[in-house]
Amino acid sequence: MFRTNTCGELRLSDAGKNVTLAGWVQRVRKMGGMTFVDLRDRYGITQIVFNNELDAALNEAANHLGREFVIQVKGAVSERTSKNPNMPTGDIEILASELNILNPSEVPPFTIEDESDGGDDIRMRYRYLDLRRNPVRRNLELRHRMTMEVRRYLDSKGFLEIETPMLVGSTPEGARDFVVPSRMNQGQFYALPQSPQTLKQLLMVAGMDRYFQIVKCFRDEDLRADRQPEFTQIDCEMSFIEQNDIIELFEGMAKHLFKEIRGIELTEPFIRMPWADAMKYYGSDKPDLRFDMRFVELMDTLKGHGFSVFDNADYIGGICAKGAASYTRKQLDALTEFVKRPQIGAKGMVYARVEADGNVKSSVDKFYSQEVLQQLRAEMNAGPGDLILILSGDDAMKTRKQLCELRLEMGRQLGLRDKDKFACLWVVDFPMFEWSDEEQRLMAMHHPFTHPKDEDIALLDTDPAAVRADAYDMVINGVEVGGGSIRIHDSALQAKMFEILGFTPEKAQEQFGFLMNAFKFGAPPHGGLAYGLDRWVSLFAGLDSIRDCIAFPKNNSGRDVMLDAPAPLDQKQLDELSIAVVSPDRQA
Amino acid sequence: MFRTNTCGELRLSDAGKNVTLAGWVQRVRKMGGMTFVDLRDRYGITQIVFNNELDAALNEAANHLGREFVIQVKGAVSERTSKNPNMPTGDIEILASELNILNPSEVPPFTIEDESDGGDDIRMRYRYLDLRRNPVRRNLELRHRMTMEVRRYLDSKGFLEIETPMLVGSTPEGARDFVVPSRMNQGQFYALPQSPQTLKQLLMVAGMDRYFQIVKCFRDEDLRADRQPEFTQIDCEMSFIEQNDIIELFEGMAKHLFKEIRGIELTEPFIRMPWADAMKYYGSDKPDLRFDMRFVELMDTLKGHGFSVFDNADYIGGICAKGAASYTRKQLDALTEFVKRPQIGAKGMVYARVEADGNVKSSVDKFYSQEVLQQLRAEMNAGPGDLILILSGDDAMKTRKQLCELRLEMGRQLGLRDKDKFACLWVVDFPMFEWSDEEQRLMAMHHPFTHPKDEDIALLDTDPAAVRADAYDMVINGVEVGGGSIRIHDSALQAKMFEILGFTPEKAQEQFGFLMNAFKFGAPPHGGLAYGLDRWVSLFAGLDSIRDCIAFPKNNSGRDVMLDAPAPLDQKQLDELSIAVVSPDRQA
Repeated sequence: MFRTNTCGELRLSDAGKNVTLAGWVQRVRKMGGMTFVDLRDRYGITQIVFNNELDAALNEAANHLGREFVIQVKGAVSERTSKNPNMPTGDIEILASELNILNPSEVPPFTIEDESDGGDDIRMRYRYLDLRRNPVRRNLELRHRMTMEVRRYLDSKGFLEIETPMLVGSTPEGARDFVVPSRMNQGQFYALPQSPQTLKQLLMVAGMDRYFQIVKCFRDEDLRADRQPEFTQIDCEMSFIEQNDIIELFEGMAKHLFKEIRGIELTEPFIRMPWADAMKYYGSDKPDLRFDMRFVELMDTLKGHGFSVFDNADYIGGICAKGAASYTRKQLDALTEFVKRPQIGAKGMVYARVEADGNVKSSVDKFYSQEVLQQLRAEMNAGPGDLILILSGDDAMKTRKQLCELRLEMGRQLGLRDKDKFACLWVVDFPMFEWSDEEQRLMAMHHPFTHPKDEDIALLDTDPAAVRADAYDMVINGVEVGGGSIRIHDSALQAKMFEILGFTPEKAQEQFGFLMNAFKFGAPPHGGLAYGLDRWVSLFAGLDSIRDCIAFPKNNSGRDVMLDAPAPLDQKQLDELSIAVVSPDRQA
Repeated sequence: MFRTNTCGELRLSDAGKNVTLAGWVQRVRKMGGMTFVDLRDRYGITQIVFNNELDAALNEAANHLGREFVIQVKGAVSERTSKNPNMPTGDIEILASELNILNPSEVPPFTIEDESDGGDDIRMRYRYLDLRRNPVRRNLELRHRMTMEVRRYLDSKGFLEIETPMLVGSTPEGARDFVVPSRMNQGQFYALPQSPQTLKQLLMVAGMDRYFQIVKCFRDEDLRADRQPEFTQIDCEMSFIEQNDIIELFEGMAKHLFKEIRGIELTEPFIRMPWADAMKYYGSDKPDLRFDMRFVELMDTLKGHGFSVFDNADYIGGICAKGAASYTRKQLDALTEFVKRPQIGAKGMVYARVEADGNVKSSVDKFYSQEVLQQLRAEMNAGPGDLILILSGDDAMKTRKQLCELRLEMGRQLGLRDKDKFACLWVVDFPMFEWSDEEQRLMAMHHPFTHPKDEDIALLDTDPAAVRADAYDMVINGVEVGGGSIRIHDSALQAKMFEILGFTPEKAQEQFGFLMNAFKFGAPPHGGLAYGLDRWVSLFAGLDSIRDCIAFPKNNSGRDVMLDAPAPLDQKQLDELSIAVVSPDRQA
């Protein structure tokens, strides 16, 4: 062992001990005949003192240490004269009697400090240096603690962690697969799993009863800030349960994590909000409930007063921003610009301020009497000082989504989206199907194995678009951290589902035969869910991107710039795999 | 919830309770007016009783249940008149009052019993049924418990589990990589990691101090019984440590697992056997120490007596099989055939029996006097009733390996390789290099980053083949369950290593640049090891193949016969990836 103690553990009670520390040089300061070195490791920082009067050569050597040198120091723990209450080791320092340079370091390309001067690109290229920074390292420590607690909780509930294969078959439905050419089976390919969905259902058929796995999944999609080609899922499945059992067990897991990891005791049951309500009141299937600003529909109030925009609208809805009546014209114009951005796509925005005397002043005063505006104020539950913001449109769902963006932006501007406050809920009763304009048919909103709600099964024949599913998402602070469903275990119902989805029996057999065949041999009622670990860690860490909680993430082009991967292969490797690279223009 | 209790939990103290159980029909027996159903789930089997006198219709329904039907039963727990002491629920049965068939089952293609009538192929095709069998399920439960305990132990020692990427760069050295074409970077490929070796070293450079990961690794090699294209590693690395620290910490982990999982308290330190001794005394770098039969070199004793085979040999070695003098001529001939098989390759075998009176009778008596044979007996430490087996050859290493096979076979025949007995050791001081006849140069025995022993560094210039490494394997019952090394962290030493291995500086930079560059910025002294989880679980489970502790293994052609993977891709998928399948004969 190169050390007797870490750089984070010595305290005043250790004074007088002779110790050996090892770590990285964070900082060297020279003061008179003394040299102070801050020595850092994963566990903390300890101050080392070299004294010219005691050992001039040693002091001289310390003076030549550079940032990020790896050193070993021997010396005595001693009480500091000027203590630093901001660090756990701040009461002591080490009077050095020996110094060994274990490894020198070139000057790092950016500063290894909480706030670094390095840009994103260079930090990713030298990720091994970036990871030395406290905030990045802390994210990985948090991730470790979270997975430990998830495993502890699920183990205590009788779940078995079972590894499913990484080299599986390709399923062309859904997102694109990453594929892997097989050398031993020439011309054939494995696929990397987008999720272990069908495999975990097979484990239920196998009688495993309670399964989980913290597992890498792969999707070859174009990337955004919160997507990675490989990501990690907490994947779970249970047998002989109903929706409520799953929700209670995993709500318990969430509460366990909040308590153990964040020290937050959530005593109330999570709200269970039907999907239809989430869309109606928040314009989103993952509403951020840290703040209110629920949508109010204003068709009855504002239609038919001569304002043609509203008179022609199929939806008019408003939100009330408490205390925002002081917004300037400039701020309001900026909000209008915000909702008119192409990503959001509203045509315009109407606002109304409630003044101190209770009067309402709106941007469309010429069309509305004060009486109507007072009625608006009452419906919006707005008081003096409040600001009412209204959007309208000819497609209710689209307009609600625009109003959702406006609501989130107002929440942000008013400081209502505190990263240390958490609002959790379940969104339930998702629609079974959604219409695809592209495919001109109903598509499964989750996947074709999702169970419809029992009371809606009769609608499968008469009005399939109205059928709701036993599907549920866990939403925290406007982020979908997980979701799942009860699965179909009855083959007749499964056949009907494929029929509605436009599968011929042959096509269903071809694509999902291995699972349907398994269901012939005694499939138990089952269901489950999956959490996005990267997202959940980011949420607990208060991060904006999942990249910061991943040790070695890919960039937006799917590249690992540190490893310089992907890269061309040797011809020999291609030959062995019986594949060739074809330039796009030479394809048929 | 479809049940109030599992099929494994009810006891006599529950008698009188009304319960609901759900599970699979293991067996239906009709006795007079009663029908007995054994209901099975993951947790056990409970007997259900239907009584014709109480409810004829219900009894009739129970009579029509088939094997593997999924049913739900309600009824009262009642004391059995004839108890079954062989099962935990054997004191009770359920008097059924309600029966719901949750899912029928076709007749399974093989019996779901501890000893199945299904062959390997059909069990793999219907693996979800095979997994319902107790012995297979128990292997997965064991695997879960082992990984939980590994994580608990390493967490308690300050290790962080950190996920490294699955999509990395290809390193053509070593085994073949599985590769993954990139759609976004056309003509370029990721590789699936053979191990996170370089990434975990980067995590040490990053100051993570103690890392572990239970992680899938991939090698595209031709398969054998104990190999899978994807396998799971317990991968570990530590900083600021020396070899002894690693050995102590991971010996502690092994002892923890033996205690928690197998209930075996190993109090003695594991033997640390130099590689040279392992080869000399057992002909293997993974000796099975459950039994003795140490090799004795017999060159001095048996050379020069006119027996030309021995007179011309460069190595003569023997083992003493206690109590095996009763072996018949037929058995001895079979042993001779055994060592002469091409996989072993010995030219023949000499034996000598020690008779009850102490006389030695050998197969080469005409060349040796009783005096020499008595000397042999003394050197072999053989007593009356013992059998001495001797091999010779012109290559000491090859002959030792043949003698190793003979020793293991004798251990097997004499029942000395008890699967419930465990002999653990560390093999240490591996050679740094091994000569490659194919490449006509020295190759790294572990990998080019392995640290030579300090006392051998001077030999790098004069006699590199004699240099020993700070490398170590943990061996249990003749199986290498894990291994690792101290890594080089000094760039001058690393450069010398590459030079000896025949790398130009340019080639070293091209292949390992990302790691060598990282080492310029303050790499700490570090080292680690990796365990093969599949092998270790197999060992604890007493299995002959790692396949039986993997939920969905591949067969010897790398195929998943249940999923029917790998398979050809759609042309559209190939086009998107800019690759084409080339038949081998059309390759340049």
